[in-house]
Amino acid sequence: MNTDRRGLFAGSAAVAAALALPAAAQQAAAPPAPAQAPGFYRFKLGGFTVTTVHDGFFRRPVEGFVRGVPTAEVQALLAEAFLPGDQLTIPFTITFVETPRGLYVFDAGTGAQMAPTAGQMAANMRAAGLDPARVTGVIVSHFHGDHITGLTTAQNERAFPNAEIIVPAAEWAWWSDDANAARSPEGQRPNFANTARRFGPYQGRIRQVRDGEEVAPGIRAVSAHGHTPGHTVYHVADGADQMMFLADLTNRPEIGARRPDWQIVFDFDGEAAAATRRRVFDRVASERMRVTGYHYMFPSTGFIAREGQGFRFVPADWSSQV
Amino acid sequence: MNTDRRGLFAGSAAVAAALALPAAAQQAAAPPAPAQAPGFYRFKLGGFTVTTVHDGFFRRPVEGFVRGVPTAEVQALLAEAFLPGDQLTIPFTITFVETPRGLYVFDAGTGAQMAPTAGQMAANMRAAGLDPARVTGVIVSHFHGDHITGLTTAQNERAFPNAEIIVPAAEWAWWSDDANAARSPEGQRPNFANTARRFGPYQGRIRQVRDGEEVAPGIRAVSAHGHTPGHTVYHVADGADQMMFLADLTNRPEIGARRPDWQIVFDFDGEAAAATRRRVFDRVASERMRVTGYHYMFPSTGFIAREGQGFRFVPADWSSQV
Repeated sequence: MNTDRRGLFAGSAAVAAALALPAAAQQAAAPPAPAQAPGFYRFKLGGFTVTTVHDGFFRRPVEGFVRGVPTAEVQALLAEAFLPGDQLTIPFTITFVETPRGLYVFDAGTGAQMAPTAGQMAANMRAAGLDPARVTGVIVSHFHGDHITGLTTAQNERAFPNAEIIVPAAEWAWWSDDANAARSPEGQRPNFANTARRFGPYQGRIRQVRDGEEVAPGIRAVSAHGHTPGHTVYHVADGADQMMFLADLTNRPEIGARRPDWQIVFDFDGEAAAATRRRVFDRVASERMRVTGYHYMFPSTGFIAREGQGFRFVPADWSSQV
Repeated sequence: MNTDRRGLFAGSAAVAAALALPAAAQQAAAPPAPAQAPGFYRFKLGGFTVTTVHDGFFRRPVEGFVRGVPTAEVQALLAEAFLPGDQLTIPFTITFVETPRGLYVFDAGTGAQMAPTAGQMAANMRAAGLDPARVTGVIVSHFHGDHITGLTTAQNERAFPNAEIIVPAAEWAWWSDDANAARSPEGQRPNFANTARRFGPYQGRIRQVRDGEEVAPGIRAVSAHGHTPGHTVYHVADGADQMMFLADLTNRPEIGARRPDWQIVFDFDGEAAAATRRRVFDRVASERMRVTGYHYMFPSTGFIAREGQGFRFVPADWSSQV
């Protein structure tokens, strides 16, 4: 077999001609096109450049996702958004913000260690020209596995070798103390071990932040407790332009924005999560502020509008012009 | 804005050569990341593969876009969709359908001959692995310049060298006869010369089709006159899966789906266009049928839901899994 690629490609036209193959067969020598375009999307926020990066998705049954609401009611809401009623697809989207003083990223993805349909973040970062070694700070919203597992590789080495890790103080306090395990929902107890594991390699590089604190130039923590004890969203501003990284204020907005009072299976404290959801959605809706989310349909950026007793997520206009 | 579109995707080798870098350095230099991800999106329709391809956009004032409606009323509707009120961005999106019996494309883009912010179709086709030489048929909805100019190059050579061109008979009858010029809106009269110019190089390869006719396996013409005398949309089906290519049934759906009775400046016969819009939207809403459009926000595919006295376009869920 000819392993010299250039020779192989150079020869293919002659071979095809000799075999009298049609033009389409000769085309087969071209590099294969990707099945889907790379999952990144870029827009400007003042002088900052924001890039959302797709890490894939996972699927779970719709049944049991919303607590105490008949499945048929959830399915009816999904049907309004033309989403299937059996399986819920939950995408993961990581928001990067390039500022004059550093490249910051909100949360860390699944690190290709959680679901076979997830783990595309590294490839999509490469496609977007985002080098993990260039990341100045990883700003964490909360410590659920799909947000922090990507901090380290499967060998538990730092995935962002030069980054500082910025964490909500309340979140750190809860999950770094095993004494809280008994007071946590059973399904969330693996977070204690995963917290120790993922933050371990960043010893000495971890900074705790509090509500209202400016964690980096133009980036401010906004407490949004409930989904987890220290769940935090982040306000990003440059000049008059502002946006909010909403993290898990809601999971898919087709459910959680339309019915902000519904409590989902991943909420640590469902009642607090619902109250927080209303409060933060009220603010971003009133201010007509751009948002990005973690589990929103890619490219995961848009606006929150009031609708009926709840809200609606309106995707931002897509532009090839950044 | 980067006006060198090829540079966005393919300029790195040329740049390295111009800088006289040694061969090793050229090998080592990573290709620069594109400002934006390539504008193509792929999904399955039965055994067919549909790819929408972005060709860019153009901008025009909101004022004067909708006939006989106060600009402030149009701006209020745009604000509901979080779109700006001064300039309207009109994207161009071309729908490709790969079938076992050929690669078909709906309309032909601007051919990089109409607006500096348009003409990205060729680069995005390359990124998607869609070779113009492989196109079996170009299926045309109507003869407005942004839909047929891309049939030929600036030198007026065939852009799809091996394709048959499929056109609505009523559209052909109107624009191929200069005697109709006096009965056409003044702004649309350049279409006569452009029709002659763009179809000229395809002499002997043009097929006229009529309402209800199967124009290719699984693809059927559906008359939707009004926007132009022969404006036609196309129904695509494979097995139980179906979709409708809606062409210019509406321009941006944030306006035309919400207010189907409004008539826009590009409509040849505004009243007929509005009646057709209601009829076709009614059908695709009732059947909950997937649609693609030509001036919809990329990736330009989703569903039409009834809302109030009109409709709403609901984008389809984005998936990295084709």
